[in-house]
Amino acid sequence: MKKSSLIFFVLCLVTAANAQDIYKEQRGGWLQKAEESKPPLIETIKQPVTLVTLVQDDNVFQHWKAVKSKPVDSLYNNSFKKQSGVVVDFGEHLTGYFTFSVEELNRAADAPLRIKFTFGEVPSELATPFDPYPGGLSRAWLQDEIITISDVPSTITIPRRFAFCYVKMELLGSSVYSDFRITNVSFKASTSVNTTPGALAATTNKMIGDIDRIGLTTLKECMQTVYEDGPKRDRRLWIGDLYLESLANIYSYKNYALTKHCLYLLAGLSYEDGVAPSNVFERPKPHPQINPLFDYALIYDVAVKEYVQATGDKQTALDLWPLIKQQLEIPKKYLGEDGMLDYEKANKEWWLFFDWRNGLDKQAALQGVVIWAYKNTYELAKMIGKENEVAELPALVKKMTDATHKNLYDKTSGVFVSGKDNQVSYASQAWMVLSGVATKVEGATALKKLPTMQNVVYPGAPYLYHYVIEAMIQCDLKQEAKELLTNYWGGMVNKGADTFWEVYDPKDDFLSPYKFFPVNSYCHAWSCTPVYFIRKYPEIFQQ
Amino acid sequence: MKKSSLIFFVLCLVTAANAQDIYKEQRGGWLQKAEESKPPLIETIKQPVTLVTLVQDDNVFQHWKAVKSKPVDSLYNNSFKKQSGVVVDFGEHLTGYFTFSVEELNRAADAPLRIKFTFGEVPSELATPFDPYPGGLSRAWLQDEIITISDVPSTITIPRRFAFCYVKMELLGSSVYSDFRITNVSFKASTSVNTTPGALAATTNKMIGDIDRIGLTTLKECMQTVYEDGPKRDRRLWIGDLYLESLANIYSYKNYALTKHCLYLLAGLSYEDGVAPSNVFERPKPHPQINPLFDYALIYDVAVKEYVQATGDKQTALDLWPLIKQQLEIPKKYLGEDGMLDYEKANKEWWLFFDWRNGLDKQAALQGVVIWAYKNTYELAKMIGKENEVAELPALVKKMTDATHKNLYDKTSGVFVSGKDNQVSYASQAWMVLSGVATKVEGATALKKLPTMQNVVYPGAPYLYHYVIEAMIQCDLKQEAKELLTNYWGGMVNKGADTFWEVYDPKDDFLSPYKFFPVNSYCHAWSCTPVYFIRKYPEIFQQ
Repeated sequence: MKKSSLIFFVLCLVTAANAQDIYKEQRGGWLQKAEESKPPLIETIKQPVTLVTLVQDDNVFQHWKAVKSKPVDSLYNNSFKKQSGVVVDFGEHLTGYFTFSVEELNRAADAPLRIKFTFGEVPSELATPFDPYPGGLSRAWLQDEIITISDVPSTITIPRRFAFCYVKMELLGSSVYSDFRITNVSFKASTSVNTTPGALAATTNKMIGDIDRIGLTTLKECMQTVYEDGPKRDRRLWIGDLYLESLANIYSYKNYALTKHCLYLLAGLSYEDGVAPSNVFERPKPHPQINPLFDYALIYDVAVKEYVQATGDKQTALDLWPLIKQQLEIPKKYLGEDGMLDYEKANKEWWLFFDWRNGLDKQAALQGVVIWAYKNTYELAKMIGKENEVAELPALVKKMTDATHKNLYDKTSGVFVSGKDNQVSYASQAWMVLSGVATKVEGATALKKLPTMQNVVYPGAPYLYHYVIEAMIQCDLKQEAKELLTNYWGGMVNKGADTFWEVYDPKDDFLSPYKFFPVNSYCHAWSCTPVYFIRKYPEIFQQ
Repeated sequence: MKKSSLIFFVLCLVTAANAQDIYKEQRGGWLQKAEESKPPLIETIKQPVTLVTLVQDDNVFQHWKAVKSKPVDSLYNNSFKKQSGVVVDFGEHLTGYFTFSVEELNRAADAPLRIKFTFGEVPSELATPFDPYPGGLSRAWLQDEIITISDVPSTITIPRRFAFCYVKMELLGSSVYSDFRITNVSFKASTSVNTTPGALAATTNKMIGDIDRIGLTTLKECMQTVYEDGPKRDRRLWIGDLYLESLANIYSYKNYALTKHCLYLLAGLSYEDGVAPSNVFERPKPHPQINPLFDYALIYDVAVKEYVQATGDKQTALDLWPLIKQQLEIPKKYLGEDGMLDYEKANKEWWLFFDWRNGLDKQAALQGVVIWAYKNTYELAKMIGKENEVAELPALVKKMTDATHKNLYDKTSGVFVSGKDNQVSYASQAWMVLSGVATKVEGATALKKLPTMQNVVYPGAPYLYHYVIEAMIQCDLKQEAKELLTNYWGGMVNKGADTFWEVYDPKDDFLSPYKFFPVNSYCHAWSCTPVYFIRKYPEIFQQ
């Protein structure tokens, strides 16, 4: 399909259900520019580094570790029949396509072979039975494939893309009359990263260096033709992940073509009612998931602002301006005369995310994200000479800020509260700081007080840790920010992470929002954020 | 790889282990002619005809039948999630490649799909659990494939070749958030058959007509780029199957290019010591299985003779003459002065086949096949002016015939016996007749007596039935031949066969030489032989 007909197809797809596409003038151009800015993938052929044995150990992450056993040649030089269950270690997290050969030993193979390959980002994925599958997401995310090989010798590339460090190979079928071996295991690894970031200051402590290195790998693996959330799962472009990845990219790989591509792609696939899509797929053809997400739509604007600030590429912001401006409308439907959003109504009509944490009250975070997005969008408008089109923003920000402070700041306890039950959470404090509702002093006081209080709702996923650490830095809680980053991400380092995980609770290695920890992503975009902090704030993190 | 380099590769392969290749002069030319005579495959896109339900019924073959349920559109037009386990019937046995599409329903798919496809030649293959696998052959022969589909919509062709009538589809993984359907199921069916055989005489009874039709389908499905033994299993060229298929082909499809291709391929891949290979593989590159089989090596000569007789293509026989002549040497090592072969020694040093039947004593059959092959090869030699090179054959045949009659004919009981225990079997009588050891009268008497005797070893597989029926016809037991053919193959017809089976015991639907009946082939070359009999002897079978 030619580029132009592809774009026409997507246009038809997006607009088919409803002729009222508010971007009907712009959509074609946005998709065209998305296509034009699509970054090439850099492909590298990788070889395994060693065979490993899986060892159960209650003292390690998820109770399984991979222990170096034999050189890879011992796989290649011996009958595979005697090695079923062997685990090959590539020594690093890779994303791409797996190739292997089978060769006859001694005698012509007289029957097909059946081999099961299980790819794991972490050792427990290779040691935990997948079936019967208890998880809440599709069983098909788990990376096991059963391959029938009709011809021997042959070289086979499994058509599915994998993300992994380790691969287990199990023999499910072969002739008793003939023997074979597996050879030439290789992997075509891909990423759109094409630069090497600078070294950290020599003064950087080892743990920060490790966190930075693992964060860089995490980011690199998620940077494919879009900023994926996770190369194993969900393999797509979410605005929330894009925001954190593109920030980290500014301070590391500087692949601005990728950011530009993603911003245009999101615009081209935005919903017909004007909302920026929470997430989109590039394959088989670019299309959005119809799943509007309030906070992500607003974060889109901030992502554009950060991109323009880093690159000076005002033309992109001008192109995208209709979409950017339209996101400002989303909160207005819920905004009362008093400057407070109708949280109950918004929560009923929208998906509000902010964090994976059951029971989190999101009223304060919602007020915060709107004010923060309005402020950032106004800054962006000024950069590109559009402030007259959003002239109401400063007054709106002021009104909402005052109302929020009045309604949600509890002077007695010195923290911000949220919802009918006056819930106290990290999410609420972070967004009150980032929005500027909290003064530096109030923010610092609140953030320092949280660990001493009862019934505080802690962050669930690494995503929220980003906003908490950013808030700490804004309140000059530099040591606390460094400690939190070191403790949280350092916890993963100490548990053997090669890439940072989607889900990490220091107290529960088996936590999964999907009821089955092997389906968690163990290389996840929103966990790459230490790269941003460590490199943006060297005076805090590299000392 | 170019043709010439491929041939060079095969030459290297065959000759690498031993410089003493007795065909080093001819092998290259034989492989070249094999390549040149390779028949094209005729490919046809087929659509399913109905959905079926599998119903357990102790009164049907292997206790499962497929009952027509809904039109195929009901699969295509509804969510697949609610149809997991559906069985699609293509209405005929097909060999080739399966394609299907998945399409979104209502909402963009947000996760990959995992679907298991099980292909069956007979209904029981879809209803019998394959694991834990109890069979003796490779588990990989069973036709179940688990497919992960990363992108929706998409159209997928499973790379493995299947042979089937029915396909079951089971959902193993999908998102709870999005729905999908399966559409556009199709199958690219292949055969090298490119003609339609003539109709049978109007006088032919219905059962003979059914047997002929099913036999033709069986033969057509096995005729690919070689005469395969079975398109599901073992998918390769055996001399024994080639012989029966090429006989049936002479009286039906007349694809002589295929026969020629197979004869040259077997020659090009013959063993370095001169023996014709029991079986060869075309893929991934032409190569033999090193598994010498005494009776098949001799049958090679007879297959060439039948081919030349049907086509007049003497040049092929002249080309292949060194191989043909060399097969005559195999028995000589075991031949005593008395004209009897040293059966014990031959049985120890060779695989002797004749039939799948435990306990069959093969002494008589061995004497018979050698005499029969010698006679036929002498006839062939005369056709191509080579009789002076095998001038010893007539005397040898006479000596062996007399000795065999003297030693193995039991005048008292009127049957031929075999081995130390004087075993009486159908195999022995058949080969005594075909070799001419038995006179017509002796043969007829013996064959008619067998059903009245105790402890007779009956035929095991359809392969031996061919030789028994041919022997009956030679002894003028026309009615008995017709009855045996009608009873045996008609038994499969009555049990619902669409193609004839590798293994058929009227008393045991679950018989398997491989300890697991689903791994049996249910479309097997050596069962196509009724086509030959019905069409070669219309005066017997079409009246």
